[in-house]
Amino acid sequence: MFLINSFEIIGTIAFAISGALIGIEKKLDLFGVMFLAITTAVGGGIFRDIIIGNTPPTAFINPASCVISIATALITFYFYKKLHKLKNIIVISDALGLGVFTAVGANTAVTHEMNYAFIVVSMGLITGVGGGILRDVFVKDIPFVFRKEIYAVASILGALCFFFTYNYLSEAMSLYISFIVTFIIRILSMIYNLNLPVPQNKENSSAM
Amino acid sequence: MFLINSFEIIGTIAFAISGALIGIEKKLDLFGVMFLAITTAVGGGIFRDIIIGNTPPTAFINPASCVISIATALITFYFYKKLHKLKNIIVISDALGLGVFTAVGANTAVTHEMNYAFIVVSMGLITGVGGGILRDVFVKDIPFVFRKEIYAVASILGALCFFFTYNYLSEAMSLYISFIVTFIIRILSMIYNLNLPVPQNKENSSAM
Amino acid sequence: MFLINSFEIIGTIAFAISGALIGIEKKLDLFGVMFLAITTAVGGGIFRDIIIGNTPPTAFINPASCVISIATALITFYFYKKLHKLKNIIVISDALGLGVFTAVGANTAVTHEMNYAFIVVSMGLITGVGGGILRDVFVKDIPFVFRKEIYAVASILGALCFFFTYNYLSEAMSLYISFIVTFIIRILSMIYNLNLPVPQNKENSSAM
Repeated sequence: MFLINSFEIIGTIAFAISGALIGIEKKLDLFGVMFLAITTAVGGGIFRDIIIGNTPPTAFINPASCVISIATALITFYFYKKLHKLKNIIVISDALGLGVFTAVGANTAVTHEMNYAFIVVSMGLITGVGGGILRDVFVKDIPFVFRKEIYAVASILGALCFFFTYNYLSEAMSLYISFIVTFIIRILSMIYNLNLPVPQNKENSSAM
Repeated sequence: MFLINSFEIIGTIAFAISGALIGIEKKLDLFGVMFLAITTAVGGGIFRDIIIGNTPPTAFINPASCVISIATALITFYFYKKLHKLKNIIVISDALGLGVFTAVGANTAVTHEMNYAFIVVSMGLITGVGGGILRDVFVKDIPFVFRKEIYAVASILGALCFFFTYNYLSEAMSLYISFIVTFIIRILSMIYNLNLPVPQNKENSSAM
Repeated sequence: MFLINSFEIIGTIAFAISGALIGIEKKLDLFGVMFLAITTAVGGGIFRDIIIGNTPPTAFINPASCVISIATALITFYFYKKLHKLKNIIVISDALGLGVFTAVGANTAVTHEMNYAFIVVSMGLITGVGGGILRDVFVKDIPFVFRKEIYAVASILGALCFFFTYNYLSEAMSLYISFIVTFIIRILSMIYNLNLPVPQNKENSSAM
């Protein structure tokens, strides 16, 4: 599980950077930037733990992810002008994070003996995208994940892979497959600029 | 309970349509539209279950409502231009949904042995209007239910009817009374265009 | 604990007034104004109870705070034009509320045998500022607490004082210290107009 743990740290950092950058863009103060970094990095996992009744959520008992997020937020706050050069690294790290959080979330459902397809996929998805949704709600953006690119779909497909393999393979193997499928779909969707269909209304007149 | 179950399905469809239509209006992609439909239809029940400690929430264990919501969202996504003709049906179905979710929510509190007036009414109200609040928060609208018409009030009065009758009548009878009271108040408020009072400030200068 | 209980009532009223005033400013109807008052006053405590698994949250079992919030909202709704004269009283009451909610929240973590620094501080902070965050999300403002003044920081430092003293002093004494530290820092930050650093970007071009 060493790789999974490493990817989890990389993903936490990437998610925290995305939260901190949006906080900076919205001119929040240092607390706001740190709060948004933490929310983005651990919000999905907290939400998942509340839903499955695993209280208090892991993020509160083991604050490692929060500490990493705070450190990341501080560095981002003071050096964000230099982060442009790292744009590709951040995008790839974000995809790593999506993959690993999806895999870990799906696995959490199973280890709590909730092994229906629907709840396994839901927990993978919520762990993967929940933090980003909270981040966007806090700064008054319509959540990114509702609007474009294959982001949630990558998470759903990755979680499904976990569900279909964990009965036959070792836990670690299923985690890796789920992670890799999510990661590759996410990266491919960016390379080929794939999007889900959007409504064809030219004007809002069609809305009721 | 056959009628209650039927109304629950009708209400789920109506709530999912309202979520999907707002998603389409806000130009979300297909995932966003589906997510918003699910949120609107089952968000109130999930929130209620988290509050009373019934985890994982029913919607995750029995995904029938989510499946109905997804199917509804898909149909709405591809045929929403034809939905204008159904406007009255959708409005009536929404009132059916408000009534049945209120009754079921109030009953859920009682079946979990929380039989104080305040919590019974709160659970009816949250089940009835919580999904719509979440939907509006996700798309950056101030929740509809805070702004106009007798919507929440119908739910509160319906839940109160459940509270005052369930000790004396059968469960089914209390559910029907709660449902009917909520439904009728909601429909009457639309027919006669009843609204709650709003503040009389002509300008914002009065706000602190 | 008489003083703590008194301060809790004063803080509840102050938080409810702040919620009601923002609801009035945003032209919500009477239900919306009451809902926002309740959310602001008890939202932080509900969120804290859900996180530590204390379900149903205290606010639903003992509705005293909700009743106080509703009464406060009604009075505010009909007499808010006269509230200008009370501006200083409201600001001081809000600081009292922040202090007492922080102390009570930190104590709640400890009484549920969660006595790590991180969770004690988190629960103090969430109880103190969670309601205000929810209030701002509902009316589409970026949460106040993310943007300016020493608000969250006062709560964090007060909760830390609770954590470092509760092993050595009586519960009441720790509560008072936590309360007083939070209150004084908050008041001083307003008197001297202290703020956290904000990002130095003159334009948004730096955001990714």
